[in-house]
Amino acid sequence: MFYMVQMYVNRPESINDEDWGAIRKREMEYGQSLMKDGRFRHIWRVVGEVSNVSIFDVDSNDELHEIISNFPLFPYMDIKVTPLAPHPSGLPEMYQYDQPAVAASR
Amino acid sequence: MFYMVQMYVNRPESINDEDWGAIRKREMEYGQSLMKDGRFRHIWRVVGEVSNVSIFDVDSNDELHEIISNFPLFPYMDIKVTPLAPHPSGLPEMYQYDQPAVAASR
Amino acid sequence: MFYMVQMYVNRPESINDEDWGAIRKREMEYGQSLMKDGRFRHIWRVVGEVSNVSIFDVDSNDELHEIISNFPLFPYMDIKVTPLAPHPSGLPEMYQYDQPAVAASR
Amino acid sequence: MFYMVQMYVNRPESINDEDWGAIRKREMEYGQSLMKDGRFRHIWRVVGEVSNVSIFDVDSNDELHEIISNFPLFPYMDIKVTPLAPHPSGLPEMYQYDQPAVAASR
Amino acid sequence: MFYMVQMYVNRPESINDEDWGAIRKREMEYGQSLMKDGRFRHIWRVVGEVSNVSIFDVDSNDELHEIISNFPLFPYMDIKVTPLAPHPSGLPEMYQYDQPAVAASR
Amino acid sequence: MFYMVQMYVNRPESINDEDWGAIRKREMEYGQSLMKDGRFRHIWRVVGEVSNVSIFDVDSNDELHEIISNFPLFPYMDIKVTPLAPHPSGLPEMYQYDQPAVAASR
Amino acid sequence: MFYMVQMYVNRPESINDEDWGAIRKREMEYGQSLMKDGRFRHIWRVVGEVSNVSIFDVDSNDELHEIISNFPLFPYMDIKVTPLAPHPSGLPEMYQYDQPAVAASR
Amino acid sequence: MFYMVQMYVNRPESINDEDWGAIRKREMEYGQSLMKDGRFRHIWRVVGEVSNVSIFDVDSNDELHEIISNFPLFPYMDIKVTPLAPHPSGLPEMYQYDQPAVAASR
Amino acid sequence: MFYMVQMYVNRPESINDEDWGAIRKREMEYGQSLMKDGRFRHIWRVVGEVSNVSIFDVDSNDELHEIISNFPLFPYMDIKVTPLAPHPSGLPEMYQYDQPAVAASR
Amino acid sequence: MFYMVQMYVNRPESINDEDWGAIRKREMEYGQSLMKDGRFRHIWRVVGEVSNVSIFDVDSNDELHEIISNFPLFPYMDIKVTPLAPHPSGLPEMYQYDQPAVAASR
Repeated sequence: MFYMVQMYVNRPESINDEDWGAIRKREMEYGQSLMKDGRFRHIWRVVGEVSNVSIFDVDSNDELHEIISNFPLFPYMDIKVTPLAPHPSGLPEMYQYDQPAVAASR
Repeated sequence: MFYMVQMYVNRPESINDEDWGAIRKREMEYGQSLMKDGRFRHIWRVVGEVSNVSIFDVDSNDELHEIISNFPLFPYMDIKVTPLAPHPSGLPEMYQYDQPAVAASR
Repeated sequence: MFYMVQMYVNRPESINDEDWGAIRKREMEYGQSLMKDGRFRHIWRVVGEVSNVSIFDVDSNDELHEIISNFPLFPYMDIKVTPLAPHPSGLPEMYQYDQPAVAASR
Repeated sequence: MFYMVQMYVNRPESINDEDWGAIRKREMEYGQSLMKDGRFRHIWRVVGEVSNVSIFDVDSNDELHEIISNFPLFPYMDIKVTPLAPHPSGLPEMYQYDQPAVAASR
Repeated sequence: MFYMVQMYVNRPESINDEDWGAIRKREMEYGQSLMKDGRFRHIWRVVGEVSNVSIFDVDSNDELHEIISNFPLFPYMDIKVTPLAPHPSGLPEMYQYDQPAVAASR
Repeated sequence: MFYMVQMYVNRPESINDEDWGAIRKREMEYGQSLMKDGRFRHIWRVVGEVSNVSIFDVDSNDELHEIISNFPLFPYMDIKVTPLAPHPSGLPEMYQYDQPAVAASR
Repeated sequence: MFYMVQMYVNRPESINDEDWGAIRKREMEYGQSLMKDGRFRHIWRVVGEVSNVSIFDVDSNDELHEIISNFPLFPYMDIKVTPLAPHPSGLPEMYQYDQPAVAASR
Repeated sequence: MFYMVQMYVNRPESINDEDWGAIRKREMEYGQSLMKDGRFRHIWRVVGEVSNVSIFDVDSNDELHEIISNFPLFPYMDIKVTPLAPHPSGLPEMYQYDQPAVAASR
Repeated sequence: MFYMVQMYVNRPESINDEDWGAIRKREMEYGQSLMKDGRFRHIWRVVGEVSNVSIFDVDSNDELHEIISNFPLFPYMDIKVTPLAPHPSGLPEMYQYDQPAVAASR
Repeated sequence: MFYMVQMYVNRPESINDEDWGAIRKREMEYGQSLMKDGRFRHIWRVVGEVSNVSIFDVDSNDELHEIISNFPLFPYMDIKVTPLAPHPSGLPEMYQYDQPAVAASR
């Protein structure tokens, strides 16, 4: 089940470079673990902005909220979630992925 | 090179069901030809709306404008284009596709 | 799984009273069938407007889109969907309903 | 009498984690006391945001304002109130609740 | 119980002057009957616009919705309702009126 | 001559509770002096917000600006002024007040 | 007493060139009569738009509303009124005009 | 050549009263020197706001930018510039001024 | 003197293809005559839209308004004008053009 | 391949004049190096604002994002990117430049 998540990062002035770097390192590690288990399907940078367009593939609204609220940058982001569905004009393989979207062990 | 294209369809009252059906049929055929040659990578329906979120993978702004302006529904859509780039946190395979993005014969 | 759906009705001038009444009658019948099987949990009128705030309880984004796009008034509504999750401050019974949310026969 | 209340929480940088935790604890206790006496009927988290959609069932505008302005988080929230009414398509039981909406002792 | 109601009138091109005049005449009669029984407390024209700022004094959201949706101009107006409460700085007599707000016979 | 004034209060973090309380006390005294001489006709709290809807009855734009800019909370408010006129559907007594709107001694 | 009035003209498709020309001719005559008696102090075209920025100098909100609502183009304009006051940095002669602002015979 | 300039002043919390007073004094002197040489034709206070509507009469876009960016309050203002032209309905004398708009010595 | 002009074309349903084609042909001829005499310096299509970003180089606001209001598509366009000035970081040759910006014969 | 980039500079209060001057000096040097190799084709100041309208001519979205994110002022700017294409009404020489747009040595 797909969602578009648009994230806009606002770095507060009160955080120094070292702390900010540490948060971003944890952000990347957390994000990539989600990419590897198939729930974080796509991420693109919006050109010229500190924001991104992401596509998640999860089982429920609740799971998506838990994932997003655990992002290390969550307190510093404005986030907009748009629920998506397959489009009748799309090719079937557009909605099938080789990686497991929802691993059995979860 | 990636772009997000958001399309909002406005059906005018003056077009009857038969004509509208014919336009939509041509729309689907045109869209699927682009999907098959690898330039129209993704399309999702926005839940509850007559709009979609699409990802194109083309060589230039000019090529994207030509593609969009040839959509049969183009005169009946509001369209917003957002240029995208790979995200440094993304996995490399997120930006590689098996299908040819730009066929040699184009 | 919960969603807020906000619907704004725009009656076109070209539809006469009789046809409009027929569409609204079918709208009510369709909506009430969804209420009775437990997927359409709440509907409130926004005071002073021809719009409503509704809460749906369905299994997936795809199911919600199918439900919404089959509303007889769908072509005449602006619709905004907001995905919801249980709130940690909420009482557990707030998210449990006696009626079956997803009937076995569906 | 129903109202939708949408609350958006803005945590100021100047409050430390301990104080913020204490405010949130009092917020939850206050909210749940209102839920138990039947005036705070529903609360849902908006997926991906630090905001919620709530439904109150109170006797008057004045009572609702007093309730909201006593929330411990009130100074840190943007709040939007939408007055609601039963919808003619709704089932009667949608607007009836077992808990007392306005306790006699109030 | 007070509400601000802001009404913006949009005259459709398809209604001729005679019909429009008849609707407006009924609108005035209906409005004045509400003014006389004390539920429609104030109305001001917004300078330079075909819109007004009105104050209603009714018993419930439901009563207000019924009043508004019975305005002859209702299908031709955009309407915004804002629930109000007495202000702690206001003088007590500001919220007391000689006319009956809710007549016994209603 | 009537005006709607909508005031939205923004308390800065840098003012402590004691100072803020003193400013609000002077605000109330100043406001009530204007209410008593008939220039500040109405004030309502917007439910759920730290804002109000007020009606002033003064002789000129210049007088209104002087009144507003002397509010102790003026540096901490966003303010929107809407000029009003009597509405042709209003009852004459709606625009007449017993208190003097502009005292001779002013 | 000064007001800025911003007028945006929307020509409806249903009016032919001859009728539109006649309305505009009456608009100009009406506007110039107000300019000559000193109530319509300034008018500028917004470059590239069918809109203008105008300054009126009248005795009251009510007089301004009567003036505006009598413009022949009034049914075809979106209008925004901003009440103005002399600015403390302005030169005194900026707010004095040779022409009578409010003619004795009015 | 005319321009409307709308200026919105935002006083930062970090500037004390003495410094702010000094900046405003220089602002007034600078503004009045421009008024006296005919380039700053009008300034009105927007009622209830710390903003103004101004009309400049200068030779070029470049000259206007230089004038505005030299205002002592420039770093503390949001500014919107609207280019204007004489309106065909305006009286000729509306666009002629006794003071030199562009002094020979400039 | 430079201006950015953003034009958004809205084709009305009531104009047939032949008439629309004739208007567009005149639009192109008119635009190119301005390009050749150096006043219409740049035009770019906004990708995916029926709109453009244009740069004009003219002597005055008045000249620009005359140019824009004579575009054959003027009645069918929303237009936004932004006055520009050379940027201090720009290279001098960015603001010099070989073609005459204002021909002697104009 | 062309893009419009609109940059709005927000100077934080916490940076002193010396540091800000140093950042702006590096900004100008970086910008001019891009202008000299033909990728930064145009820059105009928006009159009255600390913002600019710029035109870039680069090979890809990715290259543009890298260029923009390396601007020394990048952390202090709001940036909006609009992809452009040649316009069918434009003269061919409008899209050809003498300077190399993409130097071989890059």
